[in-house]
Amino acid sequence: MIRKEYLMTPGPTPIPPEVSLVQAEPIIHHRTPAYTELFVRMVEGLKKVLLTENDVLTFAASGTGAMEGAVANCFSPGDRVLVAAGGKFGQRFAEIAREYRLEVEYYEYAWDEAADVEVISRLLREKPDIKGVFVTHSETSTGIVNDIRSIGEAVRDTPAILVVDSISGAGALELRTDEWNIDVLVTGSQKALMTPPGLAAAAVSPKAWEYVEKAGSPAFYFSFSKARKKYRSDTPETPFTPAVSLVMAMSKAVDILLQEGLEAAWERHRMLALCTRAAVQAMGLELFPKVLERAYAVTAIKAPEGISGGEIVRHMNRVHGVIIAGGQEQLKGKIFRIGHVGYYNFFDMAVALTALELTLNALGFPLEPGSGVGAAERVYLELTAG
Amino acid sequence: MIRKEYLMTPGPTPIPPEVSLVQAEPIIHHRTPAYTELFVRMVEGLKKVLLTENDVLTFAASGTGAMEGAVANCFSPGDRVLVAAGGKFGQRFAEIAREYRLEVEYYEYAWDEAADVEVISRLLREKPDIKGVFVTHSETSTGIVNDIRSIGEAVRDTPAILVVDSISGAGALELRTDEWNIDVLVTGSQKALMTPPGLAAAAVSPKAWEYVEKAGSPAFYFSFSKARKKYRSDTPETPFTPAVSLVMAMSKAVDILLQEGLEAAWERHRMLALCTRAAVQAMGLELFPKVLERAYAVTAIKAPEGISGGEIVRHMNRVHGVIIAGGQEQLKGKIFRIGHVGYYNFFDMAVALTALELTLNALGFPLEPGSGVGAAERVYLELTAG
Repeated sequence: MIRKEYLMTPGPTPIPPEVSLVQAEPIIHHRTPAYTELFVRMVEGLKKVLLTENDVLTFAASGTGAMEGAVANCFSPGDRVLVAAGGKFGQRFAEIAREYRLEVEYYEYAWDEAADVEVISRLLREKPDIKGVFVTHSETSTGIVNDIRSIGEAVRDTPAILVVDSISGAGALELRTDEWNIDVLVTGSQKALMTPPGLAAAAVSPKAWEYVEKAGSPAFYFSFSKARKKYRSDTPETPFTPAVSLVMAMSKAVDILLQEGLEAAWERHRMLALCTRAAVQAMGLELFPKVLERAYAVTAIKAPEGISGGEIVRHMNRVHGVIIAGGQEQLKGKIFRIGHVGYYNFFDMAVALTALELTLNALGFPLEPGSGVGAAERVYLELTAG
Repeated sequence: MIRKEYLMTPGPTPIPPEVSLVQAEPIIHHRTPAYTELFVRMVEGLKKVLLTENDVLTFAASGTGAMEGAVANCFSPGDRVLVAAGGKFGQRFAEIAREYRLEVEYYEYAWDEAADVEVISRLLREKPDIKGVFVTHSETSTGIVNDIRSIGEAVRDTPAILVVDSISGAGALELRTDEWNIDVLVTGSQKALMTPPGLAAAAVSPKAWEYVEKAGSPAFYFSFSKARKKYRSDTPETPFTPAVSLVMAMSKAVDILLQEGLEAAWERHRMLALCTRAAVQAMGLELFPKVLERAYAVTAIKAPEGISGGEIVRHMNRVHGVIIAGGQEQLKGKIFRIGHVGYYNFFDMAVALTALELTLNALGFPLEPGSGVGAAERVYLELTAG
């Protein structure tokens, strides 16, 4: 067969053709009205995607840059912060906080569970000097999605600010930055925002700005104050040269997302997850997360007895051109992950699931061809009926 | 006339069509052999462009990010550093160093002069606890290019490391990272590297690595150690999601630059600068820099009596579609700048110079049409003869 590649990892993800092409257009200078218009359109669009009226700041960087920005801009060495981590990206917040010499209260929950709001509330009561709570919205390494709404309620009436990494959530999963009391919401371009990697954003609440005023850690490239000042100037721009071609792309991609409608996009992701889930279960596989509520960005699946996740990933890629992801850190070899966050529809899942059926049969895990895809179709019909 | 746009600013600069188009190709996952090959090719190519065997680290960020990386990775609060600044980008090093609470010895030279090596040597003798010397290679805001070779000799035998911003120099101007004893060389994608903005690089010497070991400032996204470790692993990559489409582009652009030949590219930039210079002088204008040696990246020109630089920039853009730059900070209104760093040949200059002749005539600075372009042609013929 002619090899075609199907990028089905939880980021980077495929780009709509019209977004890809816009990058090939001539570079425009970032201090011209044409750029300003494009840039403001993108930022104002992002506010709609994040459901926020807070300042949305953008950086030429991948999402981790904005995560570091949250730590560097809001805190001082010695500040106590609570990091809730149940996967690789939760851990990253703790690593960054320790790099900045914050006092990290590390709440590690099981990787197949969601963070327990009660534990967070208790820790906030026990240690009232906690100044920040860091949580991952969609933990890409496990597929788990946390209940940010409840965590936001728990943090709201404390002095602490809530910092949320929604790099693989924003645009795909229900996320209400302002309503849920998220003080710093961090996201990146390369997942549901359907843009190549290299742009990051942070939405910063008034409560967080009070922290920014007092913070004593160094921040320059990721300085929130500098970014806000430049955006609020007569000719809104970024303090440093922006990634012009990526801004051109993301401006287009945000348009596409808003045209679909935010709630329609959330529903699409839920549908893709429920179809994928039904399919792999019909194939006789087991899902990794114990908490499936809200887990609509990536489906993490346990590798069946005797077959490693890596083998499945390699076979899918080499033989079928379908690129999915394995497990990371402690989950290496134990799980594999199918991403459906971003520019995907049902037929992308049909490709991935068909390839998975062929792969499992080839690797000695026999199953009835079509059993998984059939189950996905049934869920699709049910969810799209009427 | 049909409007065509000619981007003639000193960054971002135009992109070769084949580099533009590569960005529109499907996103490849950054943990696949295809990406690794592309990425290694780019980094090893960059080493050839920078004439270095030091570790070359890349970041999804604009050049300022790597400048901050140099400060954050190599120093600790309280360290004394010498910053030589004669323009906006020299100042930026001082701002970053102060943000990291370094003790800044600020040597400000006149904006129309180059840094005086004797002053740097004297300061290093007087304050032997200076741990770092920060210099701008090509100061984009003034057109001045510093004598990095001599500064490197002055710093070499001291305990200090030499940090050089060559964002608008690398690939355009003679630059010999290792031979000139540059310990941290910082550059960006969007000038002579003929790629859109959003990628930065740092070449780090063994002497600088000793500083990195001891440094006490926080560094995470721009961590040199993390970047080196990942690049040296079995599957070279970056610690955080790379800007895939920009890496695809820069890999191609570096190929194009190396195919032209590094010394040929330097000679091309020198030729474009000498042509531009001769042209504007023939038009009766005065060059801004007093030191013209090595100043081949951008030509800074004094606005003639009674006409502001901004007026010239605006007229060139609005009427002729030729986008040049004005003066920054203290030079606002006083100068205008024509960039010729990157993907330019003689005919690009012919366009810019013709438009400038038309503009000056329109703004009440009469001159003989063709006088500037003619002078440029004569220099071109002379330099390309034989």
